[in-house]
Amino acid sequence: MKQTDYFSVKFENDKLVFTDQTRLPLEEVFVETDNYERIAEAIERLEIRGAPLIGIAAAYALALAVKNEKQDVKGKFEKAYQRLSQTRPTAVNLFNVMAEVKETFNGLNEYSNAYDVLLNKAKEIHKKDEEYCEKIGMNGLAIFKTKSVVLTHCNTGKFATGGIGTAFGIIKTAYDKGLVSFVYADETRPLLQGSRLTAFELEKSGIPFALQTDSSAAVLMKQKKIDLVITGADRIALNGDSANKIGTYNLAMLSFHHDIPFYIAAPSTTIDRTIATGDEIKIEYRDKSELLTINGKQIAPSHYDAFTPAFDVTPAHLITGIITEEGVFNFPYNFIQ
Amino acid sequence: MKQTDYFSVKFENDKLVFTDQTRLPLEEVFVETDNYERIAEAIERLEIRGAPLIGIAAAYALALAVKNEKQDVKGKFEKAYQRLSQTRPTAVNLFNVMAEVKETFNGLNEYSNAYDVLLNKAKEIHKKDEEYCEKIGMNGLAIFKTKSVVLTHCNTGKFATGGIGTAFGIIKTAYDKGLVSFVYADETRPLLQGSRLTAFELEKSGIPFALQTDSSAAVLMKQKKIDLVITGADRIALNGDSANKIGTYNLAMLSFHHDIPFYIAAPSTTIDRTIATGDEIKIEYRDKSELLTINGKQIAPSHYDAFTPAFDVTPAHLITGIITEEGVFNFPYNFIQ
Repeated sequence: MKQTDYFSVKFENDKLVFTDQTRLPLEEVFVETDNYERIAEAIERLEIRGAPLIGIAAAYALALAVKNEKQDVKGKFEKAYQRLSQTRPTAVNLFNVMAEVKETFNGLNEYSNAYDVLLNKAKEIHKKDEEYCEKIGMNGLAIFKTKSVVLTHCNTGKFATGGIGTAFGIIKTAYDKGLVSFVYADETRPLLQGSRLTAFELEKSGIPFALQTDSSAAVLMKQKKIDLVITGADRIALNGDSANKIGTYNLAMLSFHHDIPFYIAAPSTTIDRTIATGDEIKIEYRDKSELLTINGKQIAPSHYDAFTPAFDVTPAHLITGIITEEGVFNFPYNFIQ
Repeated sequence: MKQTDYFSVKFENDKLVFTDQTRLPLEEVFVETDNYERIAEAIERLEIRGAPLIGIAAAYALALAVKNEKQDVKGKFEKAYQRLSQTRPTAVNLFNVMAEVKETFNGLNEYSNAYDVLLNKAKEIHKKDEEYCEKIGMNGLAIFKTKSVVLTHCNTGKFATGGIGTAFGIIKTAYDKGLVSFVYADETRPLLQGSRLTAFELEKSGIPFALQTDSSAAVLMKQKKIDLVITGADRIALNGDSANKIGTYNLAMLSFHHDIPFYIAAPSTTIDRTIATGDEIKIEYRDKSELLTINGKQIAPSHYDAFTPAFDVTPAHLITGIITEEGVFNFPYNFIQ
């Protein structure tokens, strides 16, 4: 494999091959499986993570669940569907994508070609996400006025999506066009997706970068080292309020005060057309062990209490623009219901 | 030792005894030494840390440097002085305290009692810091309008000073008077002084608390959970600009935006009377391994680049008040040269 080649998931020889993200960046370990149960476990263990990517992996898993099955195909599909539903109960993409695959399955007149049909559906879902990433990347070029130093948070690249990524896709596309000179990546506590995944993707992409603790971003801004901030989003309300990895709101506020443009990049499917504002977004709180241990090693006693939101909501007025595959939208946002 | 008993440094049987802060909170390991070089190493390795505390440790180290020395006492003192000067660059206390000890040393007519004189000087410095902490704690009571939830950063308690602490001293004093209901402590990346030291001190003091990642403080503020923010300082300019642990500037800006009072607590000796503004404060950059490893365990490849300021400078206008042993000062600050 070339230095620059890396992937999150790919489908080859009737098997799903994925990079075990929990072993990155110190080891690149690839897992090959045609067992949907193994894919369900990978999603649970965060070996495969990132909302769009989980959906894609689940779609392939549903196809694999009926591969070579001749009897009770419907029962087997349902069993896999139930199993995969229970992996990450809060991931909306997972349910949307699985519902799409189920609709395809329910449309079958007979099951002899069920695997082929579902596999094509999974590939179509994967392909669509890849195309969305490409379009987000191209649309994002419009925000670069000059060759820029970009700051980003968490991981939004190949390890989170089916393509080049959202915020990361823009950074990569802009870098390839000579519009990015350097990237600063927040380490992104508590799970260190910046240090572990974004840094890995930046290096593989040949983009010069440095990591910093989340609380050092303010100093970079004060030292006028940052031209643009771009992050992803997990859910966007109709008014533009955006839920994303914990630390994003902090970053948006710092950008606002330092007069640095702050952008969100996400596929339009991230816009939740059922909610008017971010107040309606329910924030997931994670287990405090994520704060009190690092890579499985205890750093503080497990009985200490901790405040552990996994996401925060950035108010729309702090967001300069939201970039989707449809274009660049600017504040004030009025996404269509 | 009682549950509530703990110490950072003490001088017993002609030796300095210190708690190795790098091993906390999972282990309480005590080191006993009469070797100034070992104390210099302890300061470099952060086994002893906190601006006032490293000054106190250095004072004891200078005394120990001449213990049992009969020949070239001046040369030995100078050598130790040089060595200790090179341990940490940002904290003004270290240099002030060492200059004080040097003045005492230079005042000696003969060196036969050098150790006793310098030891008394070190004890006097230690005692003075303890008294300053008490006064800061009492002066700080004035900032509590009601029983409050306080957010703090890094460690400013016994493990940073010669007494009950600065910001922590205020929290403890106010808690004992029924003025603090709960404390949120930033974990304080990269070295996790919040999770490791402040949490330990809060628990030992019986104060209810929770930890959070540094980037979650913004969410606590947005949720209106924080009434007051209090941190320490490593160096304060005449105009009030304050250097403190990386992340403090971030926190001050968030407090400003959320209309939450932000206080700095430090002995008056932290005010550097030679500098007009924070622009003149030299910031120490630490080794990137502090970011790429956690408790000695590699989390990202060692060749990754990292931006690693140990401190940042908070502009005076973001600081509601500065509390010293002399009283509470409010913005605008005009400390006397």
